[in-house]
This record gives sequence, C-alpha cells and structure tokens, in this order.
Amino acid sequence: MPLGDRAGDKSESRYCGVETEFDDDVPQLLLSNLSSAGFDFVVAPLMDPSYRPSLMRKENGGSAVLPFAGSDLVLSPAQWSSHVVGKISSWIDLDSEDEILRIDSETTLKQEIAWASHLSLQACLLPAPKGTSYANYARCVHQILQGLNNMQLWLRIPLVKVDEDSTDVNSDNLVDSWDLWNSFRLLCEHHSQLSTAIDVLSTLPSPNALGRWFGESCFLTNSRGYPCLSKRHQKLITGLFNHSIQVVLSGKPLHNVSKGSADLPTGLNKNSSDGAQSHPLRCYLDYIAFLYQRMDPLPEQERIELGYRDFLQAPLQPLMDNLESQTYETFEKDAVKYIQYQRAIVKALKDRVADENASSITTVLMVVGAGRGPLVRAALQAGEETGRKLKVYAVEKNPNAVVTLHSLVKMEGWERIVTIISCDMRHWDASEQADILVSELLGSFGDNELSPECLDGAQRFLKQDGISIPSSYTSFIQPITASKLYNDVKAHKDVSHFETAYVVKLHNVARLSPPQPVFTFTHPNWTPDGSNQRYQKLAFEIPNDTGAALVHGFAGYFDATLYGDVHLGIEPSTATPNMFSWFAIFFPLRTPICVRPGSPLEVHFWRCCSSHKVWYEWCVTSPSQSPLHNCNGRSYWVGL
Amino acid sequence: MPLGDRAGDKSESRYCGVETEFDDDVPQLLLSNLSSAGFDFVVAPLMDPSYRPSLMRKENGGSAVLPFAGSDLVLSPAQWSSHVVGKISSWIDLDSEDEILRIDSETTLKQEIAWASHLSLQACLLPAPKGTSYANYARCVHQILQGLNNMQLWLRIPLVKVDEDSTDVNSDNLVDSWDLWNSFRLLCEHHSQLSTAIDVLSTLPSPNALGRWFGESCFLTNSRGYPCLSKRHQKLITGLFNHSIQVVLSGKPLHNVSKGSADLPTGLNKNSSDGAQSHPLRCYLDYIAFLYQRMDPLPEQERIELGYRDFLQAPLQPLMDNLESQTYETFEKDAVKYIQYQRAIVKALKDRVADENASSITTVLMVVGAGRGPLVRAALQAGEETGRKLKVYAVEKNPNAVVTLHSLVKMEGWERIVTIISCDMRHWDASEQADILVSELLGSFGDNELSPECLDGAQRFLKQDGISIPSSYTSFIQPITASKLYNDVKAHKDVSHFETAYVVKLHNVARLSPPQPVFTFTHPNWTPDGSNQRYQKLAFEIPNDTGAALVHGFAGYFDATLYGDVHLGIEPSTATPNMFSWFAIFFPLRTPICVRPGSPLEVHFWRCCSSHKVWYEWCVTSPSQSPLHNCNGRSYWVGL
Repeated sequence: MPLGDRAGDKSESRYCGVETEFDDDVPQLLLSNLSSAGFDFVVAPLMDPSYRPSLMRKENGGSAVLPFAGSDLVLSPAQWSSHVVGKISSWIDLDSEDEILRIDSETTLKQEIAWASHLSLQACLLPAPKGTSYANYARCVHQILQGLNNMQLWLRIPLVKVDEDSTDVNSDNLVDSWDLWNSFRLLCEHHSQLSTAIDVLSTLPSPNALGRWFGESCFLTNSRGYPCLSKRHQKLITGLFNHSIQVVLSGKPLHNVSKGSADLPTGLNKNSSDGAQSHPLRCYLDYIAFLYQRMDPLPEQERIELGYRDFLQAPLQPLMDNLESQTYETFEKDAVKYIQYQRAIVKALKDRVADENASSITTVLMVVGAGRGPLVRAALQAGEETGRKLKVYAVEKNPNAVVTLHSLVKMEGWERIVTIISCDMRHWDASEQADILVSELLGSFGDNELSPECLDGAQRFLKQDGISIPSSYTSFIQPITASKLYNDVKAHKDVSHFETAYVVKLHNVARLSPPQPVFTFTHPNWTPDGSNQRYQKLAFEIPNDTGAALVHGFAGYFDATLYGDVHLGIEPSTATPNMFSWFAIFFPLRTPICVRPGSPLEVHFWRCCSSHKVWYEWCVTSPSQSPLHNCNGRSYWVGL
Repeated sequence: MPLGDRAGDKSESRYCGVETEFDDDVPQLLLSNLSSAGFDFVVAPLMDPSYRPSLMRKENGGSAVLPFAGSDLVLSPAQWSSHVVGKISSWIDLDSEDEILRIDSETTLKQEIAWASHLSLQACLLPAPKGTSYANYARCVHQILQGLNNMQLWLRIPLVKVDEDSTDVNSDNLVDSWDLWNSFRLLCEHHSQLSTAIDVLSTLPSPNALGRWFGESCFLTNSRGYPCLSKRHQKLITGLFNHSIQVVLSGKPLHNVSKGSADLPTGLNKNSSDGAQSHPLRCYLDYIAFLYQRMDPLPEQERIELGYRDFLQAPLQPLMDNLESQTYETFEKDAVKYIQYQRAIVKALKDRVADENASSITTVLMVVGAGRGPLVRAALQAGEETGRKLKVYAVEKNPNAVVTLHSLVKMEGWERIVTIISCDMRHWDASEQADILVSELLGSFGDNELSPECLDGAQRFLKQDGISIPSSYTSFIQPITASKLYNDVKAHKDVSHFETAYVVKLHNVARLSPPQPVFTFTHPNWTPDGSNQRYQKLAFEIPNDTGAALVHGFAGYFDATLYGDVHLGIEPSTATPNMFSWFAIFFPLRTPICVRPGSPLEVHFWRCCSSHKVWYEWCVTSPSQSPLHNCNGRSYWVGL
C-alpha cells in the first residue's frame, strides 16, 4: 500500500518496507507485515542466524541441508521478487582477526546471496562493516558482483555523527559514514548494482555532511524514534523522498500509541489502520505516509523534466548541424526567455531613440540566428510597446528554418518591416549597419555553442556605437558528487567519454561548493587581436562541516546580461525562474577526486581555439593531480 | 668522445654534453665544443633569447623570419640529430600573471619545438617551471607531446634541498623537486617521451629523497662545482651512471685549473686534453670521465642480464604448459641453486639415518617435478657425500623431459638406483612411501607456480614423519617507483595488463620501504581442511627524509627454507648470491598512488583458489583507495 500519490511522481519513494526477525514461515511473515499491516515489502533474514558453516561441517559431516527460511516453493516467484528483500546475516564479519569467523562469514555471505539470486529477489541488504577495516568484505562483495544477475546489493551504513572538534583518543574508531561508503565502493570499482542503505539514528550529522548523500543512489532504513521526528529528521527524510529513496522501518516500537491518541500529529490519517490487526510499527508507517503526503506537489516544470533527470545528452552543435523542426518547436515554447529578450530590447530601443524622436528615427535591428522567428516577434512587440520605428533583418543560415520564416512573415503581414537573409552571419555582406544586434546563441556553458565566434563575425555590420543583446555572458562551474553520472560515463569504457561535456538535468547530485565564474565574453568586442582563448584557475573550498567528499566532475552554468539590468541564466543562485531552455552542463573527471575540508580543490579550465574548432581542456591540480582532460580537443570539440 | 668503456655496458651513460649560450654560428659552436674539446653533444638554444612574438608582430607586422640559430642547411641532418640537443628559451613562463608574457611563452615554445622537430633533433631541454603553479605549462607540453615525432622532451628540474623541519614563512615557495616533476608528468599522463633533466646544485637532498630518482628515466645537467665533488655528489653521480643517465656540463668554470695542476685528483687522465685548444669546462669533463672510468666493472651476472633490465615477462605456467628444452637448459646452469639443494639433502639424510645405520637403511627419496634431472643428480651426490644408501624416484609429468631423463640415467649408469615415473605427481599411485620429497616448484613469488597445490597432492606418498625439501617458503612485497614499467603496462591500453603480475629484472626502480612477508606455506601440511587461500594486510612506512613518493606497484620476492638452516631466495636483504633462476615479480597498480611520509601505505593481498585456477587479488586502502585488482582472477591466474 503506497504511502500516497504525487502527481507525475513515478519514483520508488512511495513504497515503505519493514525489517523483520528470522522467521521460518515466510508466508505468515508476509501476511502479518504486508496484507494486514500495510507495508509494501519485508526486509527479512534468509538464513537461520545460529548457522555457522564450520559448526555444521563438524556436526553433520557437511551433508545437511542449509537452514534457509522456507524453500522457493512457499511463495510464488512474483511474491519473492516484489515483497521480499533479503537481509544477509548480521553476524558476518569478513575482516575479523579470528580466521574461522572470517572464513565462515565469507562462506555464509556467498551462500545467502546465491540463494537470494535463485529466488530472483530484487535486492539484498548487506550488514554494515563491523570495524574500520573492511577490505576483505569489499573484495568478497566485488567478487560476488562480477557474477550477479540483476539483483541489487544495498550496503547498510549507519549515519554516524562525527564531531569534527573531537580529539578524543577513541575517535580513531569513529569513521565518517560517508567515508566508509566511499572507500567501500571505490574498492568495488563503483559497481552500479551496489548502493547504500543509510541507517538513520537518533542523532544526525551536519546538514552539509548529509548533503553528500544526495549525490548517491541510496535507500533509507531503520528510522527509529517516531512519532514525532525532529525538524531536522523530517527535513532529511523529505529531502531524500525527493531523491527517490525507499524507507524501511526497523526496530521495536518506542511509543505506546493507541489508536486516535493525542500524540499523533494533526493531519495524520487516523483511519488508515481501521479494521486491521494492529502491527507494532503501524503508527510509524502512518507517520511516514503523513510526511510523504504532506510534501508539496511536484511543480509542472519538474514533472515535464522528470524523464530527463540525470540523463546525459551530447550538447547541440548548432553551427555544424542544422536544428530540426522539433527542436525549434521545443525551445520556442520557453515564454520566460522571450519575455526577458523583449524587456531587453525595450530598454535598448528607449536608450537608442529618445521619446521625441520616436516617429522620425528608424532603428535597424538585426536578429542573427533568427531560427523560425521568435526573436523577430519579440523585437516587433518591443517596437510596438515603445512606439519606436523598426527595420528588422532576420539572418538565418539554416535554409529549412528560412522556409518557415517566410511563411511567418507573410502570415503576420510583416513584409514591409522584416527582411529575411538566408546566410551564415559570419559571411553575410550586409548592405547597411545595424543599431541593435540580437542573438540567442548561448549554450548551457554560455560560450559553448560558439556565440563569441559568431558575434565576432557579425559585429562587422554593427555600428561602432551599436548594441549587442546579449551584451555579455559568463560561465560558472561548481564541483559535484554524481555517482550515477559517473557510472553512466564509465559504462562506455573509454577515455573519450570522460573528456566530453554533457548537457544534463542534474538531480541526484551533491553540490559541494558555490559556483564560481570561469570565462566572460563581452559584445561588441572592438579590441584588435581580441582572442577568444581563455584560461582560468579556480580554488573551491569544501565547508568544514561537510567532511570528505568525492568529486566526480563539475556542473557548468551560465549567466548572461541581455541589456542593462535584464539578465538571463541558469547559475543556481541567480537563475531565471521557470525557464526550461537550458539544463546544466557536466564536465566529468576520469578518476573521482576525494577532497577534504581545509585542502582547497584547485581546478583549471581552458577554452582553446583553432581554425576549425573550439574546445575545452580541464584538470585538477590540488589536492591531487588529475591528468589533463581533452588535450587538443581529441575527444570533444565544437566545430566552427 | 665517450667517457670510457665498461665491458658489456651499452648504456647512454658514456656520453657527456655541454650546455652553451646562444650562438648564431652552429657549426663553429660544434667545432669549439665537440671536436676539439671532447664533448659528445651540445645543449644549445635554438632561438635568439631577445625574441618575443608580441614585439616582433608590432615591429614587423608579423612578416619577418623567426630568429633561429642558423638554418637546417648549416649542418647535415645526422649532425643535427646526433650532436645537438635543443635548449628551449629559458625566459618562457606559461603561468605568468602577465597575460602577454604568458601568450608569448606559449607561442615561442611551440615555434621552437616545431623547429627542433623539423631538424629531427633527438631531444629538447625544457626550462624548469618558474613558480609553484605550472598547470598551463604542463597543458601546453601535453598538447605538444600529442603530435610529436620521436623527439624526447627533458624537463629541467633543479635538485633542491628541502628542509623538512623548516616552518619558515618562505617555505611555501620551496617545492620538493620530485613533487614538481611528479605533478607535471601526472598532468601529462605519464607520456613516455617526457623525461626529466635534473639540475645538480651545490647542496643535495637526503639520500632517501635522492633514491626516488632511480625509479625515473632521467638526464643529469648542470653539474657545478668540479673539481672535486663532495663524496655525496660523487656517489649520486656514479649511482645515476648505473641507471643509464647522461651528463651535461653547464655554467662557467669556478676553478682556474691549469693543465697538470696539483688540484686534479690522482688517477685523472691528464693527457686527454693534450694537443687540443683548452675548453673552459675541459677539466670538468675529464673529472666526469675519471668518475666513470673509476667505477667497478659490471659483474658477469649483471652483464648477462643487461638485456632483461626492466623488461616485463609473463610468469611461467609450468603446470599448464610443458617447459621447452631451452628453458630447462637455462635453469640447469644455475649451479648455486643446486649446491643449496645438495646441502639441504645432505642435512636431511644425516638427520634421517644415523651414521651407524648408514649401510643398513635405504632412504626413499622422491624428486617430484624432476625435469631433466638436476635434482636427481644433487640427491645422488648428497648420498655419496654422506655415505647414505638411496632409492630415488624421479616423477615428471612432461613426457618430453622424461625422454631426456631416461638417457641421463642410462648415460650415468644410475639404473639400479633411480626409477623414472612419467606421471603428474598429483595423480601418481605410488607403490611405496617416501622418506624425503624434493621439489623445485617455486616461482619468483614463492607459491605463484602452485607449489602448495602440487605438494599437497604429492604428500599422499610421503611418510607421516617424512621431510619435504623445501620445508617452507614465504613471499615478500615492497612498494616501488617504476616509471618505465608503468608506462610499458599502460601501453596496452586495457585494464587486464594492470591486473597481471610480471617477472622482471628490476633496474630503474626506487625501492621505497623494506620488503615485508606476505604468505607462508609449510610442507608437509597434515592439518585437515588445510586451505591454500591466504589473506594478508601490510602497512609500509615511507622514511621521513624521502619526501613524497609515487608507488607504481609492488616488487615481489620469495625466501625458502630448504631444510634446517639451508635457505634459498631472492628477498634483497637475504638473497642467495650469484643465483640467476629468478627475477623479481611486479604487481602493478592501475593508478599510481602518491604516498607521503607519516601516512602509512596500507596494502592487501589475497591468494584465492577455485577448482581450476589460483590467482592473486590486491588493493591499496591507505593513503587512498585503489580499486580491487584482478577480481575473480579475471585478468591473471595460474591454471591447476
């Protein structure tokens, strides 16, 4: 019974499981926890907890049947796979000093996973590593992952609060939870079937430290202490709901809540357990459902973009390739963007022509890269709004878009004002000079679709005192943890995909430090020899209370000044609301870099140009050295 | 004129160059430095040092000829390539805050390298990075390396003494030389055409810090302060001679040494400059030649093994493949090894049979894996030496070797003592039990040719109180810097070569910490269920005065106790002298790991077994996490 329904949300977050003790009678276990109590699945031990391979060999000479909970016949295959998550014996300790325990643990782990595979379970929950050393545990899990079917392994990680100021002698044993998880998965080569189940305890680490988990695929277990959770616990859980986690309840009830008790928060659906035999954790489930149902519905925009979350796309190459009609169609729908352009043109027209000259002076406005005409429309509306007279040139290199432009002009009756030029702006031999040059050539990283090179070419027909809209733009980057993106890049098994930038709707990522500006371009640019090559060195600080973090790469954004105070952009702190034309860009790192607070992350970005292409190179030089990425644009470039 | 001749040494060390100032007249430059002065090559600037691209563009509008030293026609192509190393303008600074200087530097660097390539020079000397930031310099060199012909680039690195105790405010600017080189080459992805030219100054870092350079391919420049050098300078230079470096002399003479001066060390060949016009650095050249000639000649063993230095070989698979006659031939020549075996058998025979029983008791000795008979011979000689009566079984699975065994026995008249069994020792159904089992199944890493599995099979026909020779063996590892080996592995461009162990004559490597024991096996092994799986965790400390070091992987060795106090092995501190049957083994790391003194290097090794194969897995968990290498033996294994 899902926690509730949110419009458009198809994530796994709607489901809630419960952790159970070992029970030989699995059908009864399901009956008491699912059907009557309302949980969606159980996390149940598969093997009698008293089992030890070494004892069994001694007692039975190795011929006995393994003490599994039931046979595969007690449930249907569909029931096993949709209602049971296997809980691996929690006594196992593969890094014990005791060799017999170590070998028993390895044997048992392999037997239980093999059994779970045989049952086609969707996942098994691995117990948390026992100490600070877990190399042998990780090695064994890595071995198992090599031959595993589709089953997922969830490594249980207790969410421990580490006191940074602690200089306690015992603090050697306090491992930061995220460090533990990070080392374990590095040993397992970021295997995509290994994820984490975080154990939420009564105390919580700092918000920044918790933020790192948003870059992981994770599951939430063991939420103790309901009802009610502290504000911070509530915030963590709704935050994780937004990142598609599933909740598993665990432990014994701490509260003796009778039905309809005054302890229950207002708004909690008190009728949900009516008529059913009361499960000891039922009121906790109701509380989780309450938290879920209380969340704001997904905004329309988010709902549309759900399918794009964390999905890597190659950036457009609008100079080399002609856009398709469908692509124009999509981008033209971004009303917010064209409203900003219209506002900018209005201000430029007013600055250009004083009110008293409005009827006598005609402003020459050229839209370079007119596409199917949205900026032409914005310009004409700005002219109307201000009462300024306009002569508009619409320059477009894509002959297919020019066809649409012609019919638009005819349909709207703009023939006397608008002249259509079917030509690449870099090569057009204009018959007059423009007062205002309007373009929409910006990519997610600002200059990455070669706006600088195009506008340098186009400014030949701009008057010396003419205006370019946009008048400037700046790119930004910030370091992020992004396990899924990293794994998707790695799946290609080559270097070149690690040296490519991707357009992506960032979702399951942790943003580790505020974005910083990288390259700025200003138009028009009348300086002689003005080069569009750039080099920028940046130093990011990871906040002290974050703890160590893994950097998988950099999220890139842009912000553009269209004209005066009218801007447009996707840099998170200043992003234009409700605009959907741009996702962020992602620059990956070939090897993720672990950064600790106090040691700055030093990053270098270059924008390089040759006669036929433009590309970026990047590297990290601190805290450790990365190789130089995309040398000579060997893997990723934009054609001129 | 080479420095001298050492028997068998074909290394580049015999040649010595001299660094010169810019001179437009290259033929004259060669004449005065080579022919008459005795140097083998010059390191000469290629471009007028006053050249700046930005100034030239201003003055000439960009149409002037670049101010190179001479045209390609002033020397023959062979002269250019064998006598001139290009010295890149030392004013260049690609990481300057001054953008004009930065861009001028990049342009000049590219022009000079392009010119040197055009001349087919063997190498160019790149100036040392100017400050602590050199990412742009490295990026530009990396770009150049992508399109370079066979020319080498030598990055000049001053050998700076860093005081570890210094808490000076200025110490921020003191970069450890090796750190500098290491970061630079990491940015350049360990490119094989980039090596280093170390500038030896008047003070020297600690011996351990210097030791790191033995793991690099490097060139030595700028040896100032002759004659005479301090003992430590002398030791460094002869140490580097042994690692095939070339010397370049540089700077102005500090000593006014007249011919035959009493200042010259005894033994220096005072006649070498007779009849030639004296070059200002001539006496320094003579001194270097003196140091070279004074070195001990290469030992015979070293001379034989010269061709194997740092050459990666796949380990033998003697169980799966039959050895070739040539291989037996080579190994049988190792007299030292068989002397050790004979000594061990002598001791065992004496312990087994008291003197008074010598004539009455016959000892049953089985050679398992007899090959072409060298251990049979050692056993019979031991019998003769001790007066003990022997019955020898020679068990051998390779039918081709058995042919040789038969003719050996016939030739030597051993028919009444030696019985030949053509069978795999693991499957032989023996008619009697042995007193002594002798085998030579050890690989470079001890158990890596599956001696444990073979002897476990063979001990079925060993008496309960019988003796195995060897009675035990232990493997050892130590972390090493090994640039060449790493590059050779990397050249395969796949993961599996990084997950393979190689047999290799280690030469240009830096051994960073003493070897530590890994796995031990003892024979016979009567414990039930005795498994040959092993797991060992090791922690290595890098000495404080080494500074940071890069670990490319682990050198592996073994030491075996044949019997009593007779041992055999290649672990460096206890290695059996003059034995050549085993080179070391090398376990690479997929990504080199930088280790600083004070943070231990934690390494895990596993020996894993399945029914058909045995393999190793390994990983590093501190100071940073490596992936697990060779999971499930996917890349490298030994067949049973």
